Amino acid sequence: MSRAHAPQARVAAARAPAEFTRLFNPRAIAVVGATGDPRRIGGQPVDILVSNGFPGAVHPVNPRYEELGGRRCYPDVTAVPAPCDLALVAVAAPLVPRVIEQCGAAGIPFAIVFSAGFREIGEEGARLEAELKAAIAKSGVRVIGPNCIGTMNLKDRVLCGFGPGFRNPGLKAGPVAMVSQSGGFAYSVAGLAANEGLGFNYIVSVGNEADVSTLDLMAEFLERGEVEVVVSYIEGIADGRKLRAIGARALELGKPIVVWKVGNSPVGRKAAESHTASMTADYALYRAAFREGGFVEITDVHDMVDVVRAFGGKRLPKGPGVAVITTSGGSGVLIADCCDRQGLRLPPLEAVTVEAIAPLAPKYSSFANPIDLTAQVGSESENFNRITELVAGDPNIDQVIIRYGAAQAAGSEHWAAGLVEIARKTDKPLLVAWSRVPDPDARSLQTLEKHRVPWLLTPARTATAAAVLYEFSRKRETRATRQARGASHATGRQPLNLPAQGGALGERRSKQCLAAYGIATVREAALTLEQVERLSTAPFPFPLVVKIDSPDIAHKTEAGGVRVGIASVAELKQAAAEIAAAARRHRPDARIEGVLVAEMARGVEVIAGAVNDRYFGPVVMFGLGGVFTEVLRDVTYRFAPFDVTSAREMIAEIKAAPLLTGYRGRPAVAVDALAEVLSRLSLLIADHGERVAEIDVNPIFVDETGALAADALLVLKPAAHD
Amino acid sequence: MSRAHAPQARVAAARAPAEFTRLFNPRAIAVVGATGDPRRIGGQPVDILVSNGFPGAVHPVNPRYEELGGRRCYPDVTAVPAPCDLALVAVAAPLVPRVIEQCGAAGIPFAIVFSAGFREIGEEGARLEAELKAAIAKSGVRVIGPNCIGTMNLKDRVLCGFGPGFRNPGLKAGPVAMVSQSGGFAYSVAGLAANEGLGFNYIVSVGNEADVSTLDLMAEFLERGEVEVVVSYIEGIADGRKLRAIGARALELGKPIVVWKVGNSPVGRKAAESHTASMTADYALYRAAFREGGFVEITDVHDMVDVVRAFGGKRLPKGPGVAVITTSGGSGVLIADCCDRQGLRLPPLEAVTVEAIAPLAPKYSSFANPIDLTAQVGSESENFNRITELVAGDPNIDQVIIRYGAAQAAGSEHWAAGLVEIARKTDKPLLVAWSRVPDPDARSLQTLEKHRVPWLLTPARTATAAAVLYEFSRKRETRATRQARGASHATGRQPLNLPAQGGALGERRSKQCLAAYGIATVREAALTLEQVERLSTAPFPFPLVVKIDSPDIAHKTEAGGVRVGIASVAELKQAAAEIAAAARRHRPDARIEGVLVAEMARGVEVIAGAVNDRYFGPVVMFGLGGVFTEVLRDVTYRFAPFDVTSAREMIAEIKAAPLLTGYRGRPAVAVDALAEVLSRLSLLIADHGERVAEIDVNPIFVDETGALAADALLVLKPAAHD
Repeated sequence: MSRAHAPQARVAAARAPAEFTRLFNPRAIAVVGATGDPRRIGGQPVDILVSNGFPGAVHPVNPRYEELGGRRCYPDVTAVPAPCDLALVAVAAPLVPRVIEQCGAAGIPFAIVFSAGFREIGEEGARLEAELKAAIAKSGVRVIGPNCIGTMNLKDRVLCGFGPGFRNPGLKAGPVAMVSQSGGFAYSVAGLAANEGLGFNYIVSVGNEADVSTLDLMAEFLERGEVEVVVSYIEGIADGRKLRAIGARALELGKPIVVWKVGNSPVGRKAAESHTASMTADYALYRAAFREGGFVEITDVHDMVDVVRAFGGKRLPKGPGVAVITTSGGSGVLIADCCDRQGLRLPPLEAVTVEAIAPLAPKYSSFANPIDLTAQVGSESENFNRITELVAGDPNIDQVIIRYGAAQAAGSEHWAAGLVEIARKTDKPLLVAWSRVPDPDARSLQTLEKHRVPWLLTPARTATAAAVLYEFSRKRETRATRQARGASHATGRQPLNLPAQGGALGERRSKQCLAAYGIATVREAALTLEQVERLSTAPFPFPLVVKIDSPDIAHKTEAGGVRVGIASVAELKQAAAEIAAAARRHRPDARIEGVLVAEMARGVEVIAGAVNDRYFGPVVMFGLGGVFTEVLRDVTYRFAPFDVTSAREMIAEIKAAPLLTGYRGRPAVAVDALAEVLSRLSLLIADHGERVAEIDVNPIFVDETGALAADALLVLKPAAHD
Repeated sequence: MSRAHAPQARVAAARAPAEFTRLFNPRAIAVVGATGDPRRIGGQPVDILVSNGFPGAVHPVNPRYEELGGRRCYPDVTAVPAPCDLALVAVAAPLVPRVIEQCGAAGIPFAIVFSAGFREIGEEGARLEAELKAAIAKSGVRVIGPNCIGTMNLKDRVLCGFGPGFRNPGLKAGPVAMVSQSGGFAYSVAGLAANEGLGFNYIVSVGNEADVSTLDLMAEFLERGEVEVVVSYIEGIADGRKLRAIGARALELGKPIVVWKVGNSPVGRKAAESHTASMTADYALYRAAFREGGFVEITDVHDMVDVVRAFGGKRLPKGPGVAVITTSGGSGVLIADCCDRQGLRLPPLEAVTVEAIAPLAPKYSSFANPIDLTAQVGSESENFNRITELVAGDPNIDQVIIRYGAAQAAGSEHWAAGLVEIARKTDKPLLVAWSRVPDPDARSLQTLEKHRVPWLLTPARTATAAAVLYEFSRKRETRATRQARGASHATGRQPLNLPAQGGALGERRSKQCLAAYGIATVREAALTLEQVERLSTAPFPFPLVVKIDSPDIAHKTEAGGVRVGIASVAELKQAAAEIAAAARRHRPDARIEGVLVAEMARGVEVIAGAVNDRYFGPVVMFGLGGVFTEVLRDVTYRFAPFDVTSAREMIAEIKAAPLLTGYRGRPAVAVDALAEVLSRLSLLIADHGERVAEIDVNPIFVDETGALAADALLVLKPAAHD
């Protein structure tokens, strides 16, 4: 089968993983806190391991018994015979740190801690978890948990856990690995997905992640050859930078990471905090990371099934063009809608393609895309597949959705075999919209699965799968071109001469920082109130803006400290006196250094911001001013630093982009100049994130000639004393 | 079972339906164009009817045979013995009109026409369809089709159609009726839904709707007692007014109409046109109708299953408050997110409720909503149900989602029986998030279904079901309060003295029409250019606006015919001369009557429009001006006429509403005055829709003191000559 352009073939070989080998394939396992009572957690793992076919030795550990269920029971792990690679720990929480230390002493490299009563229960538990972490560090044992349900290696039948999820005969092995911050949820989801035919080689409930994290396991599974898709249920993660690095690696490998991120709404976030005390970075930053890297975000079980099936085809479309072939006009209309909504296009076929397929199609067919062959053609007919092959060969088409509507099992086998042949001859994705109840015993489905032609249930889900493939392909492309461009940064690190203390920097000093990075600001003069009184001419042409100049007033508008549209020197003098008075009323102890007199900039008002996020690192936000940002939340984020090409993509991403790029005959503003500002801002925050906590550039005026920052505010962290 | 507040119980009894009785329950059926070849359409219906158990007589009709498959074959329908209530027609398209006439002559009241080759194939087919319509009118026969796949009454095993959908043993009877504009799609969807347990009493493929329409059948099924949910796949409908009336009736009956509307994107719409040449009103108007009436819009099969299950409970929540009870913290977080996204709330429980449930719950439970009882409690335990009952009794809670996570079938039966008891004692919806692979033989599921406690697959789908129930309830409430208010229209029909010819009415005349309906406009004076030249003082205080006054220039800005911010008489004179010159350049033959000199209004710019849509009738559009409408499409629609209360809802609906209602300390504008404008505009278009095609009021300035229309344009249809 020609796979010249299949994603896996194009990329560097996966790094050889070794770190967690003995965790998932231990030679022997100790069960610490084993009991004979199956209603208790400690009473389950031995039986679950054995009944699921774990091939190695299983050693119960409990000082209260000499023997359990016919096995010798050891007083503690140091007594367990070597080699033992893994301890399952089900003792009371306060005893766990000691057990981990003993594992270290016994040379057991891995432990999975089921015990609850740590960070998730509050302060007392947090103290215990710190103790556990110390034991982990001291012992060198790598620990999953605490407060987790366990791990599964279904490929090799190593099921280490407790509860109903571990007694579900419906689970089967397959090319998916799942890492979940909710154990109960993971095993319930796995059961439902298995019912739709999905197999999992690995499922891990990470619990409180005192040691091994969701991200560690994501990275591990990504590198494993037997894993084609990594799935992760996430409430929050501590290391956004690592998440981004893993996303980049996923693109590189051509393997998707399916993320099911919850805890995004205020009430959901609160619930997540009480659930496992997860990290709670802003969801917007997660989404920025997901959009940038090889992630596919989902919101229900069937999405997971569909993504796995779609990527199972091991090929990506080169563009957004989809051809839809159907025998039901209604399905065609529906798929066309779904594709349109998700950024795909249904381009017309080339005339030569239409000429070739027309003689093969029944009367009343439609060759506009969607291609409706009507119910007159059986999907199982020879001609249906010949038409599919011709459509797949059309240069306007990047992938083909075939809505399969045949009824006879016999014909359907023949059709499936033919479609597999067509797939051999093209490197474009062919997706089957299977629109009948899937019979897992049907030979046609088995043929498709064996030869990796993805089939999806319902036309709408097939369109979504096509969109997911295209989006992943587009991100790979974006990343590749960005790498080809190299890091073409407009400026190197500039010194900013920041004061040692933290807090807000005044407007004037803030603008000097922007200027150091080559960001143009409106012309302005800092004048004392006495200097204003003595003015006979204005420093710049009218109209002007006058603003209070005080290091103690960060929000000038709220303090009555801004006047715009000043049209004469007399007006200027009056305005300066009035805003100084207003500022003193607003904050009597404020140091008033005078006023800033500035040109009045014109154009569209946009805003840019930057923060050095504690989880994700430096990031830049961009949006239009006022209501667009504050009410409509029409903003976008990029991790810093980035070049002007990325900045231009950012500008194009907001919904109100036509306001900048031109609409209904209105001219475009200087988008390139604006992109330059955003890119330089990203350099500033990336270079100085250790001191600069926040930057707010609001507003920036952009017109046809350029972009000018009219106000700026930097907030500093205090300098470290070292 | 107490159903005091169940929706069905609260409403007027359904109207007794009779019109289509013999269509779905015919005493005997003639199959016109019957043949012995099962590969042809005419070769299938007799066998399908008989093998599915149709209890009446089946008469093949074909002049070429005397006998078919052991049955007497008649030369034409007039020879078929009476009583015969239905003819299935599978002859070549050109022969169909004659067959319908013969049905009329034979006293056969209904026909279902499978034959294709009508409107859907273009002009020639359209002529044939007109001929068919004439035959229908003349004969009085009610016809389904042409170009349809057939109808099913699964309740009574009357299956009239052809193709694989009619040989699907998976379909079963149940309380759903489906009406579909795509036959192939309908039967494939029905198969998939049946696989999730859904039963259909009726399924109809309507084809080209030459006579009986989708809406006729929607209305019919809505009134039938054996139908609890009507489902309709719609590409386009011809009578938007009737759609709205059916939506109102659905609310009245408390029965939802599930609509699956496709053909909404440009490419989908094009495909829909080529599919069955459907009507193509703007999707925004469909959505307005769906939002107003008892419709639930869906986009995939599983949505349909979920809505049917949710309404199967026959109870609606009284408010947005949901309690979530779970044993998996992850599910709780997920459900909380889904609820938040869909407008539901998770209010805290009353302190008294928490006090009552705390002793029943395991250690480490969380009583914030979502209520996480942790994996320590078996869902099947006595306490789980006792907690459920206490939560359901909390006054803050309008419905309860129970995420069921038990593993043991035995415990689950006991739990289900207990939950049914709780349901008996409350009128609040209880929804079960069933998170395991559903076994249809499980006694627990059978118990829930028998006692109409809805269960849904996956937590996310359960949250969506809860949101659908709340939205339906809210619409019923809105409708009830609107009816209670009565039609409190601010003004009766006003004469407008419109000219007889069609086309755009000038600004001045347009504003007079608004004024007749009590809509305030900015003060302005119409002056000839000579009058402007002679001015010594301005007619209103500066600043002023000057606009060209010409009946021939509809878009004044594009013609260079508007100047704002005029600050002196000299500026006014110069501006008037300049815009007159610009207007003459723009359109040399334009009649220039002079200029309009107007006050410059202040405030937020909003726009309102009205059309008399050919499908839906008079409708009013509202949004903010400029980019909000043109780029962000942040607009909303209401069918006219409506009162100020509805207008206020409309204003609150747009995303940018905080700009009007106040945000971040900014004051609200005079929303009531704006609502008054919208309501009066709705009266104008409703009263004069026969002459007024469009109204554009753009901009309207709204500030704290009131709303003033600054420009207006009416477009007229020519007066009818009668």
